[in-house]
Amino acid sequence: MRILGIDPGLRRTGFGVIDVDGPRLRYVSSGTIVVPTDQPLAGRLKVILDNIREIVQTTNPTVSALEKVFVNTNPASTLLLGQARGAAMCALADSLLEVHEYTALQVKKSVVGNGHAAKEQVQKMVQHLLGLSGVPTADSADALACAICHAHFHPLTQRLKDTGQLPASQASRVRGGRLVG
Amino acid sequence: MRILGIDPGLRRTGFGVIDVDGPRLRYVSSGTIVVPTDQPLAGRLKVILDNIREIVQTTNPTVSALEKVFVNTNPASTLLLGQARGAAMCALADSLLEVHEYTALQVKKSVVGNGHAAKEQVQKMVQHLLGLSGVPTADSADALACAICHAHFHPLTQRLKDTGQLPASQASRVRGGRLVG
Repeated sequence: MRILGIDPGLRRTGFGVIDVDGPRLRYVSSGTIVVPTDQPLAGRLKVILDNIREIVQTTNPTVSALEKVFVNTNPASTLLLGQARGAAMCALADSLLEVHEYTALQVKKSVVGNGHAAKEQVQKMVQHLLGLSGVPTADSADALACAICHAHFHPLTQRLKDTGQLPASQASRVRGGRLVG
Repeated sequence: MRILGIDPGLRRTGFGVIDVDGPRLRYVSSGTIVVPTDQPLAGRLKVILDNIREIVQTTNPTVSALEKVFVNTNPASTLLLGQARGAAMCALADSLLEVHEYTALQVKKSVVGNGHAAKEQVQKMVQHLLGLSGVPTADSADALACAICHAHFHPLTQRLKDTGQLPASQASRVRGGRLVG
């Protein structure tokens, strides 16, 4: 299973790709899409759309994971983030990739073991878990952490399907690792 | 000039297409994309993306117009609306359509003559301006009103370009009918 993690933002969108082979996690690639700020909104969203599509084409992931965002106290920022997130999800859905969403709490708990870990701890743990030679940037680390989180939650979905507790056709009803509906 | 107006929403996205021939406005088509609510978010955004792309393909507009949204008092709703809006803009930008944005005040002022007009007045005026036999639905009317607003603002852009006050290459800097930057 190859997982593409995305950390969407209108200025910077992080991405990280990992391979999961049984209990093993292997780093594939990561980086940041830096969105030009001097363009109209539609152009900026298209940069996110096009770049994620290109990442999907070149890395060929089997599934994708996104962090569920906290709504910002500033409504205008929330709207901008929502639009960036919409563009990222469109790129993934348009590439026919399943999109799984996890809360920041789930991601941090899954990577650091503490849902309230600081950004630096997430970066350090991502470096450790993937055996990287250097500390990844904050954007890359968040995206990679999201992919790692999906790797940890995935067996639950599979187990539920294997034991017949969850019909295979209802996989999409398991979101954020919890059975909904 | 054929204008596609979009009124984005995660449950219902309105669209309206008009032709502008000098001072004449001609109705082409309109409708509502009803987004299924029982799908995960990525699937719902893809419904908006796919449907708008299809509308662009079948109606072949030369330009598009969207209402600038007011941020909702409920941050979660603002985030959802932002994501729907992001999907709509992606579909337009992905079809290489220029996207123009207008505030609700500009749209209402341009269609009804009063920036604080009620929804029903907008519907009535859209019916009147386009010579429709019936009152359009609220979603269609809002999308058509946005297209009509662009038709009214467009000559300003053109005039600025014609008189050299605005370089042709900087058309995108005229947003919402006002010269920015």
